[in-house]
Amino acid sequence: MASSPQNEIQEVLSVNQAFYTAHEQRDIDAMDEIWDHGASTACIHPGWPILRGWEAVRESWVRIFAGPVRNQFILTNATASVRGTMAWITLDENLMDRANTGTIAATNLFVRSSAGWKLVLHHGSPVAPRMRSEPG
Amino acid sequence: MASSPQNEIQEVLSVNQAFYTAHEQRDIDAMDEIWDHGASTACIHPGWPILRGWEAVRESWVRIFAGPVRNQFILTNATASVRGTMAWITLDENLMDRANTGTIAATNLFVRSSAGWKLVLHHGSPVAPRMRSEPG
Repeated sequence: MASSPQNEIQEVLSVNQAFYTAHEQRDIDAMDEIWDHGASTACIHPGWPILRGWEAVRESWVRIFAGPVRNQFILTNATASVRGTMAWITLDENLMDRANTGTIAATNLFVRSSAGWKLVLHHGSPVAPRMRSEPG
Repeated sequence: MASSPQNEIQEVLSVNQAFYTAHEQRDIDAMDEIWDHGASTACIHPGWPILRGWEAVRESWVRIFAGPVRNQFILTNATASVRGTMAWITLDENLMDRANTGTIAATNLFVRSSAGWKLVLHHGSPVAPRMRSEPG
């Protein structure tokens, strides 16, 4: 292993940040770089059913980027874990535009390849306002 | 590695089924067996904020099991992937009781330990009815 665990966590957090930058900038070329292109790739957008395989996931981003709403995020509460050639991050995506407000709780799963960490699964779900201070 | 990839997928699917059986039966002892007890353990129930660490996750199950709603699931559309000592499953949880209907899209992440596959992350999010047939 070339990287220390701490370096690996920094690398994963960096790819995670690039994912949100690509989303904000509607940059499908950056998404092509960030995501794993295999059949195991999956994405669950808030309220959406499961999308599987890179083609379906990529198509969803093309459609989202073509839509009227340009999302802006403040990312908070991120925690990363690395185990072998896999890493996962949970974090809060705080939406900052008029059409979408509130917090999305997100899980991002990464696989390490020869080209670095690649996003293999993204799952986002809205946090209900009443749940924010006291879950349950 | 003692198991073939196909056997490993079967093992992970078996633990995944045990997780839903424990939920339906409100069996906290079974949850203790199924989940990893480390600091990386996390759970995002539908509409809830991120819960981190086994203590917080376990407490959420105690509270859910004490609540008025007894969840029953029909599980469909499950796909499992294994990579090294990690595995992940996405699936649809179809709720079958009067208080909760509809579909929850779920991600379950597992780590392989000497005691077998352990659930380290569960994330569930409601699928919006209009999204079911045509996402986007």
